[in-house]
Amino acid sequence: METLFATERLRTLLPRIQEFVETELYPLETTENLTRDFSYIEPVLLEKRKLVKQAGLWGLHLPEADGGLALTLCEFGQISEVLARSPFAHFVFNTQAPDIGNTELMHQYAPEPLKERYLRPLMEGTVRSCFSMTEPEFAGSNPTRMGTTAVKDGEDYIINGHKWFTSSADGAAFIIVMAVTNPEAARHKQASQILVPMGTPGVTLVRNIPIMGHAGDSWASHAEMRYENVRVPQANLIGPEGAGFLLAQERLGPGRIHHCMRFIGIAERSFELMCRYAVSRELEEGTVLGDKQFVQGFIADSRAEIDAARLLVLRTARHIDEQGAAAVRDEVSMIKFFTANMMLRVVDRAIQVHGALGMTSDILLSYWYTHERAARIYDGADEVHKSALARNILKGYGLDVKRKK
Amino acid sequence: METLFATERLRTLLPRIQEFVETELYPLETTENLTRDFSYIEPVLLEKRKLVKQAGLWGLHLPEADGGLALTLCEFGQISEVLARSPFAHFVFNTQAPDIGNTELMHQYAPEPLKERYLRPLMEGTVRSCFSMTEPEFAGSNPTRMGTTAVKDGEDYIINGHKWFTSSADGAAFIIVMAVTNPEAARHKQASQILVPMGTPGVTLVRNIPIMGHAGDSWASHAEMRYENVRVPQANLIGPEGAGFLLAQERLGPGRIHHCMRFIGIAERSFELMCRYAVSRELEEGTVLGDKQFVQGFIADSRAEIDAARLLVLRTARHIDEQGAAAVRDEVSMIKFFTANMMLRVVDRAIQVHGALGMTSDILLSYWYTHERAARIYDGADEVHKSALARNILKGYGLDVKRKK
Amino acid sequence: METLFATERLRTLLPRIQEFVETELYPLETTENLTRDFSYIEPVLLEKRKLVKQAGLWGLHLPEADGGLALTLCEFGQISEVLARSPFAHFVFNTQAPDIGNTELMHQYAPEPLKERYLRPLMEGTVRSCFSMTEPEFAGSNPTRMGTTAVKDGEDYIINGHKWFTSSADGAAFIIVMAVTNPEAARHKQASQILVPMGTPGVTLVRNIPIMGHAGDSWASHAEMRYENVRVPQANLIGPEGAGFLLAQERLGPGRIHHCMRFIGIAERSFELMCRYAVSRELEEGTVLGDKQFVQGFIADSRAEIDAARLLVLRTARHIDEQGAAAVRDEVSMIKFFTANMMLRVVDRAIQVHGALGMTSDILLSYWYTHERAARIYDGADEVHKSALARNILKGYGLDVKRKK
Amino acid sequence: METLFATERLRTLLPRIQEFVETELYPLETTENLTRDFSYIEPVLLEKRKLVKQAGLWGLHLPEADGGLALTLCEFGQISEVLARSPFAHFVFNTQAPDIGNTELMHQYAPEPLKERYLRPLMEGTVRSCFSMTEPEFAGSNPTRMGTTAVKDGEDYIINGHKWFTSSADGAAFIIVMAVTNPEAARHKQASQILVPMGTPGVTLVRNIPIMGHAGDSWASHAEMRYENVRVPQANLIGPEGAGFLLAQERLGPGRIHHCMRFIGIAERSFELMCRYAVSRELEEGTVLGDKQFVQGFIADSRAEIDAARLLVLRTARHIDEQGAAAVRDEVSMIKFFTANMMLRVVDRAIQVHGALGMTSDILLSYWYTHERAARIYDGADEVHKSALARNILKGYGLDVKRKK
Repeated sequence: METLFATERLRTLLPRIQEFVETELYPLETTENLTRDFSYIEPVLLEKRKLVKQAGLWGLHLPEADGGLALTLCEFGQISEVLARSPFAHFVFNTQAPDIGNTELMHQYAPEPLKERYLRPLMEGTVRSCFSMTEPEFAGSNPTRMGTTAVKDGEDYIINGHKWFTSSADGAAFIIVMAVTNPEAARHKQASQILVPMGTPGVTLVRNIPIMGHAGDSWASHAEMRYENVRVPQANLIGPEGAGFLLAQERLGPGRIHHCMRFIGIAERSFELMCRYAVSRELEEGTVLGDKQFVQGFIADSRAEIDAARLLVLRTARHIDEQGAAAVRDEVSMIKFFTANMMLRVVDRAIQVHGALGMTSDILLSYWYTHERAARIYDGADEVHKSALARNILKGYGLDVKRKK
Repeated sequence: METLFATERLRTLLPRIQEFVETELYPLETTENLTRDFSYIEPVLLEKRKLVKQAGLWGLHLPEADGGLALTLCEFGQISEVLARSPFAHFVFNTQAPDIGNTELMHQYAPEPLKERYLRPLMEGTVRSCFSMTEPEFAGSNPTRMGTTAVKDGEDYIINGHKWFTSSADGAAFIIVMAVTNPEAARHKQASQILVPMGTPGVTLVRNIPIMGHAGDSWASHAEMRYENVRVPQANLIGPEGAGFLLAQERLGPGRIHHCMRFIGIAERSFELMCRYAVSRELEEGTVLGDKQFVQGFIADSRAEIDAARLLVLRTARHIDEQGAAAVRDEVSMIKFFTANMMLRVVDRAIQVHGALGMTSDILLSYWYTHERAARIYDGADEVHKSALARNILKGYGLDVKRKK
Repeated sequence: METLFATERLRTLLPRIQEFVETELYPLETTENLTRDFSYIEPVLLEKRKLVKQAGLWGLHLPEADGGLALTLCEFGQISEVLARSPFAHFVFNTQAPDIGNTELMHQYAPEPLKERYLRPLMEGTVRSCFSMTEPEFAGSNPTRMGTTAVKDGEDYIINGHKWFTSSADGAAFIIVMAVTNPEAARHKQASQILVPMGTPGVTLVRNIPIMGHAGDSWASHAEMRYENVRVPQANLIGPEGAGFLLAQERLGPGRIHHCMRFIGIAERSFELMCRYAVSRELEEGTVLGDKQFVQGFIADSRAEIDAARLLVLRTARHIDEQGAAAVRDEVSMIKFFTANMMLRVVDRAIQVHGALGMTSDILLSYWYTHERAARIYDGADEVHKSALARNILKGYGLDVKRKK
Repeated sequence: METLFATERLRTLLPRIQEFVETELYPLETTENLTRDFSYIEPVLLEKRKLVKQAGLWGLHLPEADGGLALTLCEFGQISEVLARSPFAHFVFNTQAPDIGNTELMHQYAPEPLKERYLRPLMEGTVRSCFSMTEPEFAGSNPTRMGTTAVKDGEDYIINGHKWFTSSADGAAFIIVMAVTNPEAARHKQASQILVPMGTPGVTLVRNIPIMGHAGDSWASHAEMRYENVRVPQANLIGPEGAGFLLAQERLGPGRIHHCMRFIGIAERSFELMCRYAVSRELEEGTVLGDKQFVQGFIADSRAEIDAARLLVLRTARHIDEQGAAAVRDEVSMIKFFTANMMLRVVDRAIQVHGALGMTSDILLSYWYTHERAARIYDGADEVHKSALARNILKGYGLDVKRKK
């Protein structure tokens, strides 16, 4: 635990959560579970959720009114790290993306009837949801360009569009769709977020997109979606009309912390695997990997980089808690590329230390190597964040980089 | 074509091969083919082999007596690069590892009856083979430690052992097994290479090891093997008894060139994909990815690094042609880590430029990202090569690093 | 100011110090002052010290009894950063190495008469001192190997030895010499720290060693020293006999914080120079450097890296304040290599952005490029720290790397 | 010698030159010579020139008519590498920049009277020259922006302007000045190259600019220059009027090879120093630096990188010999940033291995660390070359990056 950011309840909670993860979830990291589609392990995980509830660890991220602990972002971030040590824990604790983001969003912006009907089961873990924003035809680095439209017709919206990377759509109960409702407005005020129940006529899950060779399924999948004359009531609007981007932005602040702390948990676990292997794998009689300076270098660099990244992220979390995400936009950009790259380097070093074993699904590392490469891309590619951060810094020195456009 | 290393016949051959690869094999890079097990595409590839034969491009790597062109290593390396641009081409041209290595080995060292019975169909492409050396219990960085034994019993050897990463064992007709025959000899003279027909009692393919989430099958798989009281005639010995390592070493020189030129082909194709995407993917109206300096930086660095690596490898190939692999051991170490790391950087940059698409199996890049991470491990991990190279250099300055042991 | 580590008095102090540095010291960064030997600017700096005293900012690092503020290490570290923004400020505030280290050492371990005679004027800034440990004949990475001896003779020690990198010996009033007093003791208990007044017969300042082309002089110099039958009273011993290394180790904890926060100040100022130039230097009409993504990349990476390093160092400072340096040995190793490398990267990027101007002594950057390259070497080379850190981590996993010796 | 590029005469010449450099020039690398201004060592070097002449090694770079060997660029590049192993050798062989560039330029473009009067003594080594192009007011990355003008007045030009980084102006006999003669022409056709004898009224050497703390003098200096109503005959024009940039461009091709091969020579010598120190510096009894994997890693990476860079540069040299520089513009960009960065990495590693000694002027490395940092800036900064290379590559894919302007 990073003592700078420890709180009274974390001192009690974190060890309990860590113990749960180690005892109940580490044993699930079998070759089979790391290789087969998610639906194979899903029933087991749903059983584990009962243990979470029994242990009183369910819904930690929720407001007090909903049985949660009203944790600060900085507190929940630290829990998120511990959960990320297992690839299954966030799901088991019902804090998995994109549901946690949809939960937060709906708490703040969904009208009561939607909350009652969709948010409640989401919090209870009886349904899953998804978020449908990215479109294959437009670069994700510029999210204000969008082809999907929602046109009013009587009491309804009629939605048409093509999306992809609608993560976890497979098996979800509903979709929050981003669509242009106000094409005449300024770029950033054109889109709205609309809840679409899965199964509404015109909604097609085209395919689960194969990522790194796996299409996956259920929660662990990324769908391509078609919306063809999909009719939903205007009452399904979340937040004000035209506020789609604003809400998406707002979601990003805490979401960034969740992601980054997840990266740190992954890095920390990879580090641990690397060290364990380094002390046990014999190269020749009496010499193990850890005796070698090359391996020592991997370990030392990783230790320093993980610690530095964690401090950076938790500082940002605290700042968001204190000042709101908008006030620390630069920090929010910074932690994303810094932490994602750090994590991928640590995973890569851990693989290298494991040699051939590191390639296999007999251990966890290749799972992260493939599934987490996307960390440098989704939610803002490195290059987008670096450019945004620098432009904002230079604005403080009097330069408006965007003046030219 | 690198004019420094161009030869008359390459000037004719290379464009023909490149055209074949582009016309016949690029179209096979569908999402489905990049996602499903090898056996799915295999029949199509076997059909393509007929076209190779029709085009007179079969067996390029073979001696003239066997219908080949007696190409130099430096010439074949350049062909290998072009073939590597497609993940299917080496198989279609019957120059895939480990068969090409076994072919070379058996040409030189197999007794006539083995050549007749096993090498001939291998050259004809009617059977496949595999090579069984690495053992899970011992670090690959020290190949002289080995648990598998072959004990004489009458006219036979009785083989017992446990191996893994026996690539392409699934569906192979025979295995070349490395086993200790002379346990009393010096470390480097203990093992021999023995041909074991698949199906011999006691040979078990335990599993195709899942690599990065895929067990794969057929040629594209890596088996764990058990040998329990496997009885084969001593006539199945390849090369002299106790010469197993020597032969393995010998295999490494040309094998290294094959691998490295393959890496360069992969890097070159990835570079091409990156450039194509950079000029076509729009970020906003009138601006494409290639307009951005970050992307330009990826392109410039990659161009320089690929060219430099190719020159380094082809120089080494020529030196092996002229002086033999033993004379340029340092170069052979050097090209491995230099080229493998370069290739992985280029693939990674190409993915980054493609954004979310780069993660998917809709394009080729993630295939290489997962399948080729092993390049920094197999056949000598980076760290092993760097240390070996440095020790050898320092020997030239009077230091025997190994003196301490 | 890093709010996580801000304290009430820092909120008042830091802006006052920063203003002093900007107003009084930045104007001294002329080409001439950055080019000529230290003695050229020294009289001006001694005048500035009076202003420091007038402003009530003198002796901040001292105990309250000596007119200081009894700052915590974490507080002083933050002051150290601000001072480091000017290459002259630490000297002007009398907090320059090695005097600050000697001050701390003598406060704790010097007998009263030495304090009265040597420490008092040191605190008043009327004399300077130096620390003589490193020897050219032995690798600095193993400080327990030492050729200098101090042999008892009556009431005196007689010292013989050869040292170098005795920084600031030129013009110092006294030297603290590390010498072997107990050759029969265990390696780490052989040496003692003995105060030798400059001018004692047998003490020779052989030369100020030219570093990066400059021998320098006065405080800004690094001497080679000879000690030939140098006789000093045994009463000049600092701390117990044989405790030399222990004391040197103890000095390292806080000293590491001083150094690292200095690195961060240098990085921060370089960052500022880079940004200022980026917004003002025109490439063509209407386009400045900051419009270019390459430059934006430098800025974004630097911002993230500086912030991360600062958090890491201040965390360690706080831990030392709370638990003592011995308890956080790993952190103390970690911050050194992490921060030194970060600083050198930022300086290098700032130079690159300045182009030809960055090479010149018309701006500050080349001063740091040359003078601070040593940061990765002195006080433990990167490699030494990485190996020590990794070994200590692996000990936690049950491996004693040193077992073999 | 890189056998791929060896020629008959190089096989004889190179060892002779290397021996000369080692025997006559390595002993000059004393602390004093590496620290003091160039004029201190200059008389000794001028004596050494006599030995060069006696040995028949003078003027190797010249056309046969002028006593040279009419070496190809690829041949001379290899000589340049060997000379670069000593910081004094190029001067001693009269192949130092900027004189070698001016020599080549004047051979091709100077009218006969200028050749007779200025080129002849240049070739004889009795005078030195300089080239005055860069202006402090305009970014070097865009050389077509220029404030210096040459206005016709009767038979003369009257030149006014402000330049800097006019290397080696101190003590030069004449200057080749780049000035705008045709302000109405297209950007690239505005300037001309005009020979101005040093001492012409109105020519002021404002100062030798301090670089990394040293102003230097004589050949080893970089001047700031003022031209105020400087009157020279129009007959001093070199090449056609308005062809200034064209000629400067032409100079760059071969100049790039000279520079890059110089970088390689520096890297190679640094590598050698690193290895020698690694085998001799004891860390503890029986263990030297070279026993450590960290050091082995530095050595292995450096060996591979130097070899790769050399092949890249010599390939480009050969292509220029065969096809002219214009045909291989991409390669000419590529080698610059690739080789300069490689060289600085190798120098940096060699310093790190030397520890404290590496900082000093007791050995050569810090000389290069400071003097050669500029390699990533002059003659096109890394960023300029990378962007130019990428734009040119992308043009091949159909994108005109410059279309927007």
